Order: sequence, then C-alpha cells, then structure tokens
Amino acid sequence: MEERVSKEITPKSKDYSQWYLDVVLKADLADYGPVKGCMIIKPYGYAVWENMQRDMDRRIKETGHVNAYFPLFVPKSLLEREKEHVAGFSPECAWVTIGGGAELEEPLAIRPTSEAIICSTYAKWVGSWRDLPVLINQWANVVRWEKVTRPFLRTTEFLWQEGHTLHENEAEAEEETLRMLDVYRAFSEEQLAMPVLVGRKTESEKFAGALRTYAIEALMGDGRALQAGTSHNLGQHFADAYGIEYLDRSQQRAKPWSTSWGTSTRMIGGLIMSHGDDLGLVLPPRVATYQVVIVPIPPKKGDVAETVLPKAREVLAMLKGAGVRAHLDARDQFQPGYKYADWEMRGVPVRLELGPKDIEKDQCVLVRRDNRAKEFVPLAGTAARLQALLETMQAELLERARAFVAANTTRVKSYDEFKQVMAEKRGFIVAGWNGDPKVEAKVKEETKATIRVIPMGEPVEAPCVVTGERGREVVFAQAY
Amino acid sequence: MEERVSKEITPKSKDYSQWYLDVVLKADLADYGPVKGCMIIKPYGYAVWENMQRDMDRRIKETGHVNAYFPLFVPKSLLEREKEHVAGFSPECAWVTIGGGAELEEPLAIRPTSEAIICSTYAKWVGSWRDLPVLINQWANVVRWEKVTRPFLRTTEFLWQEGHTLHENEAEAEEETLRMLDVYRAFSEEQLAMPVLVGRKTESEKFAGALRTYAIEALMGDGRALQAGTSHNLGQHFADAYGIEYLDRSQQRAKPWSTSWGTSTRMIGGLIMSHGDDLGLVLPPRVATYQVVIVPIPPKKGDVAETVLPKAREVLAMLKGAGVRAHLDARDQFQPGYKYADWEMRGVPVRLELGPKDIEKDQCVLVRRDNRAKEFVPLAGTAARLQALLETMQAELLERARAFVAANTTRVKSYDEFKQVMAEKRGFIVAGWNGDPKVEAKVKEETKATIRVIPMGEPVEAPCVVTGERGREVVFAQAY
Repeated sequence: MEERVSKEITPKSKDYSQWYLDVVLKADLADYGPVKGCMIIKPYGYAVWENMQRDMDRRIKETGHVNAYFPLFVPKSLLEREKEHVAGFSPECAWVTIGGGAELEEPLAIRPTSEAIICSTYAKWVGSWRDLPVLINQWANVVRWEKVTRPFLRTTEFLWQEGHTLHENEAEAEEETLRMLDVYRAFSEEQLAMPVLVGRKTESEKFAGALRTYAIEALMGDGRALQAGTSHNLGQHFADAYGIEYLDRSQQRAKPWSTSWGTSTRMIGGLIMSHGDDLGLVLPPRVATYQVVIVPIPPKKGDVAETVLPKAREVLAMLKGAGVRAHLDARDQFQPGYKYADWEMRGVPVRLELGPKDIEKDQCVLVRRDNRAKEFVPLAGTAARLQALLETMQAELLERARAFVAANTTRVKSYDEFKQVMAEKRGFIVAGWNGDPKVEAKVKEETKATIRVIPMGEPVEAPCVVTGERGREVVFAQAY
Repeated sequence: MEERVSKEITPKSKDYSQWYLDVVLKADLADYGPVKGCMIIKPYGYAVWENMQRDMDRRIKETGHVNAYFPLFVPKSLLEREKEHVAGFSPECAWVTIGGGAELEEPLAIRPTSEAIICSTYAKWVGSWRDLPVLINQWANVVRWEKVTRPFLRTTEFLWQEGHTLHENEAEAEEETLRMLDVYRAFSEEQLAMPVLVGRKTESEKFAGALRTYAIEALMGDGRALQAGTSHNLGQHFADAYGIEYLDRSQQRAKPWSTSWGTSTRMIGGLIMSHGDDLGLVLPPRVATYQVVIVPIPPKKGDVAETVLPKAREVLAMLKGAGVRAHLDARDQFQPGYKYADWEMRGVPVRLELGPKDIEKDQCVLVRRDNRAKEFVPLAGTAARLQALLETMQAELLERARAFVAANTTRVKSYDEFKQVMAEKRGFIVAGWNGDPKVEAKVKEETKATIRVIPMGEPVEAPCVVTGERGREVVFAQAY
C-alpha cells in the first residue's frame, strides 16, 4: 500500500520537473482547468494559501497599510500612459473587446498589475501633503498571458497582494520599499521556512517603469532560483504619467514618490520545492492545511468505530481546542499503511497513530513527516508535545534549507569555473560583475544564468568574472 | 462646522437615491473608477467588507465547507452547455478575445458566476459516492455587464462568495440549499442588523438553470426590497450538462444533485440603506471599520499634544487591547466639532470625547451614533462599558429595522389597495397570488412590484389579489 502511493511520485533525481508536477497534482494542491495556463487551486492547496494570506495580511497591516479593492479592468489609454510600463506589460495582456453583446469603444486589459488604475485614482484622492503617505494594499487576481506555464510558478491567472504607496520624498519611498522587502524576507523565512537572498535587481531585470526593483530570491531543490517577491521604488515615474500632484508643506505643487510591492501564489511553488522529497510534499507547520492527521488503527477483532474512533474523536477535539489544525482520517475503505503514505505524500507535518494498545496505555504515537522520527506520548500531554514538535520542525526545516543554500552557493573566480558550476550543480554563484548589461546578456546566453540580486549594503569589490575588469560581487543563478 | 459636514449629504426625504450616493462617496466607502460601472472600494469601505467576510467565512466553514479557487475565464463552449444558464448570462458577459497579442481561437467569458467552470471540473473529480458530498466555496470577483449601475447595489464587477456543492440525492441538496439560506439569514440579522424575509422565488425570478431559487430579501429605507443573497437547488441540470456522474452505493451510475449560493458586496448597499440617516452612514458595531473613534478636546490654554494626546493614546491602547476596533483622530487641522460631524457621517457607532476636564475627573464621554445618547464613564471602566454599549446598539439597530419592516408590511385584499399602497408607501405587500406568471407580469407592468418571495412552509390560502381566483399568500415589493 505504502509503495503504491509513493510510486505515484516521480523521484526528484529522475525528473525534477515531473516530480514537481506529480506533487502538485497528487497532493491535491492544484489541478489544471479548461483554459490553458489557468490552474484550479484545490481546497487542500487553497487552505495553505489562506494560512499564508492571513499571516501576510497581518504583517502588511502591522506596518501601517490598509486594504482596498480596485477594478479588474484597465482601459487601454490608461495603461499606455507610462511608456516603459506599457511596453513591459502590453504584450502579456488579455483584452476584453466585447461587453453586454456589443463591441467596446475602447479595449479593456485585465489587470496584469494595478499601477495604472491605482495611480490614476490616487491623482483624484491626493491634494495635500496631509494626504500622504498613502499606504494601500489589495488582494486580487491578475492575468499575464504566459507562453509556458506551470502550476503556482507561472500561471496565466494568479492570486497576489499588491501594495501601492505614495510618499513625500525619495527617502521615505526608499524606506518603504526596503521595509516591505524585509516583511517579505521575514514572512518567507518565518512562515515558509524558506531562506531568501535579498537584493537589488539589475536594469534588465527590474519592473517595467520602476526606478529600482528589489527582490527576495529562494533556492529550489534543483539548484535554480525562484524570485518569490518584489518591491519597487517607482520614483516619480507614475506620478508623472498619471498626474499625481499635491501641495507640499510650503504650499508648493509637488509630485509624490511611489512604490509597489507584491507576492503571489507563486510562493506555494517555492515552498513545495524547498521542502518536498521523494515521498511527496513536506509542509512547514505554520502554513500546513492540517498540522496533524490522526490515523486510527483498527483492532484485530472488533469494530474500529466502537473501539478506537470514539477516543480518536476525543483527541481531535482536544487538539482543535488547543488551536492545532488537526484532522481525523476516519475513512473506512483504507488501511493505516495506505493512510500513512497518503498523508506523507500530502505533506502533513505530524501523523498521530492511535490503536487499541495505545488507548490501553493512555498514549499515542507521533511521527514527524520530515525525518520520520517517532515517539510515544501520554494522551494528556499530546497537545503540548505536538505544539513543541511543530515549532521544532518549523525551525529545523528552515535550518536544513539554509544549509542547502550554503552548500549550493559557490564563489567563483573564473568564467570557466562559473560555467562548470552552472552546468554541474547550479545553485547561487557569487561572482564579480563590471556592471555592463552586455556581460549580463552574454552570461545568460551562454549559461542560462542571470543576475538574481546585487547584494544590499556596501559593494564588495571583485574583478568581473567575464572581463576581468573592476567590478562588484553579485549573485547569479538560473531562474524559474 | 458640524453643519458644513452634514450639509454635504442630501436629505433622504428630498432624494433618497442621491442620499445613498452621497453617503457612499462622502463616507469614503467607495469611489467611481475609470471604467463605467466598476467601483473602487476605498479602505474605509473595504474594512467593512473584511469584517463581513471574516464572519461569513467562519459560518461557511462551520457548516462543513472548504474554500478553493477556480479560474476567472470560462471558455464560450463551456458556458453554452447548460441552455437556460447561457441564455440567462450570455448577454451580460464580458468577453476576452485577444491574449498575448493574438486573437484567441475561442472567446473567454469573464465569469459572471462559476457553475460552468466548477461543474465541468467536478466531472473530473467525482467518481464514487464516497466523493460526495462536495462542499466547496470560493471568494472571487465576477463581472456582469450591467446597463444601469450603482455603487455596491449593481456594479459591473463585484466581489462575492459562491458555494458549489454536489449531493447524492434531492433531499440532501434541498437540505443544503435551505441550510445556506439560513446561514445568510442569520448573518444578515446578526452581523448587519438587517432583518430579512426568506422564501422561494417564482419561476420568472429564479436563477438561470436552477430547479428552485431561494432568497433573503431586506427592506430598504425607501420601501424597496433588496435581494441580499440567493441559494439555488440546481437539481440535476448542471450534472447533466457537464457530465458529472458517479458510482452510487449499489455500484450503479448516477447523477449527483447540485446547489449553489452566493452573497456579495451588494450587502454593503443593504446595510447603508437599512441604518443610514440624514447625518450619513450608521454602521452596525459588528462590522464597523472603527467601533469607536476617540476625539481629543484641546485645552483652552496649552498644547493638545502635551495635555490630552498622551492620555488619549493610553485609552486607545487599552481599547485595542480589549479587542475593540478603536481609532484616535489626532488630526491637528480640525476642531472637535468638525470631527464629530465627520465621524457621524462615516457612521462610527460610538464617539469617545476626551478633554482636559475629563482627564482631571478620570472619565470620558461616550456618544452613540444612532440615538446620540451621551454618558460619562470612568476611564478604567471604558472598555467594558463600550463593549456593552456596542452590543446594545447592535441589538437595537436590528430591533428598529424590524419595527420598520413591520410598519411597512401591508396585507392587502384588493388590487386597488395594492396599487395605492405601492404608489404611496411601498414596502412589502402580502397578497394572494394564483400562481400564474401572467398575473405576476401584469402586476410588475402596472406597479413595478415583483414577487420577492413565496414564503416558506405550508401555503397560506388567499384569493388572488388580481383575479380573485384561489391562491396563496406571497410577498410583493418594488426591488433594487
């Protein structure tokens, strides 16, 4: 039984990409929909998103932001006002051309991001320095017409939050941009147990229309990087394009600085690839749909519904009462072995086994998903022990992921070494770069690696890995 | 100052429709967007929606449902499979015809509702009676191309939750349909303090493709009814159209019964019109953005920032600590009188005044928004007193709204009386109906009133108010 379940997942080593798809589909996180590139987030996967969303929303509000909702549709003329922005996003747009049975006078883009609609609205709302800062976030669906899609990682429609703020000056806008970058870093590490590099993007990788883009970058199990969140200092570009003006403290007309920042369902792809193994998904306890699943062991003689299930329900109620997300697998058509493998595949952090002998001894068995460590626990102390175990597992997943990043970060001195590492083990490569976009393009062309981030803080000098010219250390990787 | 603020709102008696728009816009609930019929939900209004959503989501989960997310796009061919459904919704659809720079082979509708996409997916997911019931809800945006729009009440894009369930038989589907109808009733009354009639819709008013539609109907301040939520027993129509089949308990192929049910941002329109007055909005405490606003009274001499604000911040922290949604209005450019009127307009349930004399006496002043009742409260007991006051106000808003419904429900015996009531005071009219759609159409044509609900339970016999034939009591009203 156990074998049958785990066999459904292609081993990572055999085909990492297929392993990923197997986990997404078999663990019931998502399914394909009838429209190409649009996925369905199934209840088991959506609950993970809800747990993520609740915590991210709290962090966004704690940093002073409020939520709002702006329209799905962006009129063509509005999108076109910021030249770089439209050049970046227009090719990816889905256009509504018919509404209410008639051709529209002006096509409407489904928002690929909401700078255009939000900044044009801010132009109406803001009049004085007293209206600043504007600190608004929205949770929404967006659409980008992608050629190659993969569930969670790159989908035509995806769910995200997008913050859009206005500030009196550059310093405040930059502070906000970096504050939200740090919120993303903390969220990623504390909730998803997914360590990230933070840094600035090069010109070629920045957001269309931004002054500066920052990102958090995580390293996936196959040595490729995943951009898991971005935060943009938009300068005064959008204030210019959308005519946002205000009277400043000295009653002069001034243009505000704007920022935007976003994270999406893509992060679910990141957590799958950060922690999953050949048995399937491993969910970090803080975002897991169920933190523990109770598997009742039927007696040799007698009916499980009479002997074990009543006690299992008691344990379930006790755990729920203690605030643990617990589930009782009372399905009568499957044996425990099948259930073990099934819940391992679905990544439930801890399994709680309860059989007639355990009940006799007033105990249960707890088995961790990540390392399969097993322990016997007195029933009365189960909730407390479980909570401690979940915290330990959360911390150890992060530690293990950090060790993986460390083991897969290579500092290289020559372009030959660079190419060899990128061909063999991939991962993050720290190397010098002279700041020339042509060098960046050449490296991408020859190794598929791009500059993921220019690290924060004082530049670390290092000769350019391609030209040998004076340069600074940056981080390269092949990216999702 | 007070006058200036309240003058911004057109009196109800002068122009109810303009009063509504004034409240929506001036109270900062919503704003118009650049696309006709699409509103922007501003932070102050969106917070009300978040409070509603949190509670509705809890109720939906407590009745055994889980959330998921299905795509925004519905391919034309998929929408067309259920004939009545497509006939009802196709004229209201927005169509995407261009994606990624190229004309699409098949136009994609922006979901006007998700039966088509969800039922076609269920056909893949369901194979055995063990997979039933399927109890899934989603929170999403939907688009219906409306000719005449009004913020919250009828908008081209709106936010809602839509439940979609599958069951083994008619009895279970009907039970589910009525269970969710009752969830909506309880939510509306307990959270929005908005009493509703529940009942079944006539054939002409039912959901396109449904077997039976039930609704909750609230009575607005102008005597018109608002359909605030619907719950549909879809019979086997959608299982038929989308090929959902399963092996039943006797291993025979069978078709499940489906239901769907939804409530939307429209309910915000309902609560505005249920409780608002000529000073503006009145928010029921359970869903109010802020439940209390602290207005500091500056001293005659000295700086408010040194004398009153520190204590006001203490009170704010104490109230927040007690779980009250509290806000401190520390704006230094406005006098207290202006702030009182401003927050009255925005419907904050209770105002807390705090001045130098209050601080001396270790007290504050609480003023209720709905009846302006004023009381002095010792500072130490403020949180407890406030919580009690909020509960009282919540209960009294519901009571008052119930009294309004009772006073505006008329049982009529003749069609002349019917027409007179509908011309003069409107409201709900209880009258006999012979069940004939032609009579229903004639009444609508002549009085603009439609049958809002056929009451639940045993029919109450009454002669048809138009023909005098044998009939049953139904409830008529003019509707939003």
